[in-house]
Amino acid sequence: MADIHFGKVTIIGVGLIGASLAMAMRKASVAEKIVGGGRSEENLRRARQRGIIDSYSTSLEDAVDSSELVVLASPVGTFREIIKKIGDRLKEGTVVTDVGSVKGSLVAELETMLPEGRFFVGAHPIAGSDRSGLDYAHSELFRNSVTIVTPTENTDPDATERVVSLWKAIGARVVLMSPSEHDRVLALTSHLPHVVSYALVNTVEGINGRYIEYTGGGFRDTTRIASSSPELWTDILLSNRDNVLEMMEIFRERLDEIETALRNKDAAALLALLERAKKLRDEIN
Amino acid sequence: MADIHFGKVTIIGVGLIGASLAMAMRKASVAEKIVGGGRSEENLRRARQRGIIDSYSTSLEDAVDSSELVVLASPVGTFREIIKKIGDRLKEGTVVTDVGSVKGSLVAELETMLPEGRFFVGAHPIAGSDRSGLDYAHSELFRNSVTIVTPTENTDPDATERVVSLWKAIGARVVLMSPSEHDRVLALTSHLPHVVSYALVNTVEGINGRYIEYTGGGFRDTTRIASSSPELWTDILLSNRDNVLEMMEIFRERLDEIETALRNKDAAALLALLERAKKLRDEIN
Repeated sequence: MADIHFGKVTIIGVGLIGASLAMAMRKASVAEKIVGGGRSEENLRRARQRGIIDSYSTSLEDAVDSSELVVLASPVGTFREIIKKIGDRLKEGTVVTDVGSVKGSLVAELETMLPEGRFFVGAHPIAGSDRSGLDYAHSELFRNSVTIVTPTENTDPDATERVVSLWKAIGARVVLMSPSEHDRVLALTSHLPHVVSYALVNTVEGINGRYIEYTGGGFRDTTRIASSSPELWTDILLSNRDNVLEMMEIFRERLDEIETALRNKDAAALLALLERAKKLRDEIN
Repeated sequence: MADIHFGKVTIIGVGLIGASLAMAMRKASVAEKIVGGGRSEENLRRARQRGIIDSYSTSLEDAVDSSELVVLASPVGTFREIIKKIGDRLKEGTVVTDVGSVKGSLVAELETMLPEGRFFVGAHPIAGSDRSGLDYAHSELFRNSVTIVTPTENTDPDATERVVSLWKAIGARVVLMSPSEHDRVLALTSHLPHVVSYALVNTVEGINGRYIEYTGGGFRDTTRIASSSPELWTDILLSNRDNVLEMMEIFRERLDEIETALRNKDAAALLALLERAKKLRDEIN
């Protein structure tokens, strides 16, 4: 039995992350009952058939009724509307959290939208896959991964503590950081690599379609995340636009350094740049 | 027993590729005896102790004596010097081939450097790893991978056929293409991704060293090849400089497209670019 326990838990959006979270919570016995909410009844029905959730409702108001914990696991762009819809139906003391990839001013906004005595705590598990949807969900997705929890000065400390305990109970390492720092970190470590990976694949077009057949493991690894959901990533990149644009500028400067060394046939400078990268990269293995 | 058979085979440079090739040839019974040549006696001794090669010599002239096949598996930058050294010691009919990542004019040059009756055939197995050296070698490295063989109009057709048969015998798919087309393909599918990956890791520097701790699987995959040998890749990038610079230009244009959509908050344009990339990427799975 984990140190943390909830009665009824509602997960809104039973995709890769929502379903994996439900499976992990069940395995760690941190929830009495897990209810799914969402728009696609077909998806919810499949989740129930597989025992990932105990029941479901396509009415979000009904889904959150008497829940102690509500997790927003739908696209970030849907959060405001959902909070508007469910706010008045939440019972006193309910904690609302999310798993969204972008925080920014949204966290502070959602906090103020909830009625007195209902608490929002932003969270973001740094786990996932280029695969999306229920079929790839598994209970160990978050084990040994990092979850960033993003309290603001207005966040209820007890609510924060409960969200932190939840993620620890399912095997994640928890790091606390402000919503704005979270977005800068993610722009660098996740959003920029996605932009670069998408651009790298698109480079193939217009050259010779056949060339893509001769890609080795290097190309495959470097572009794997370009298979991620275009809808999801359009949403994420636009939501964190300023940070992403800033990181793209820094990336271009790093690319310029390599290009200059190459243009000048400066083997020593090129070697130094590659050695710097290898040293940094080897640190994260 | 494979369709192709050599008497004595010499592999110059017993690193990841050279040692894996030796192991694969032994497993497929395509060589009577495999001799290693190279500068580091320590490395050659370890290769012999592990049964990867039957014997070795740090004198390349001795190593190639009476060989039917000589494979250059040392850095591309060493090939001219090696051919100069061993050319006169090769017996009539010997085939010399390589596993280098860059072909260009080097193939034509090496062809003309060999004495009458000794044949050069360029080859490049698209396999490898961010790991280098003997310790990571294994006999299945080339199975189901592509090997590009690059005959010129002056290449001996029988010699080409023998090299093609060798790679097929150890499980590779063989594609024939000119040295210059090979270099354009590789600039796109291998050299550009390496440049991008090195630049992406270097983006971390100067921001906040701690941020690298929060990288997820996406960052790790996208930058895995930045752990590749800086010496090897300085050599490769400089050897294929013009093609790499051209591909970097095209990549920048693709990056510009995404940046423009993002700056303009143009969700439809951004989605279209991401969808195009996902479609291309899903083709190579």
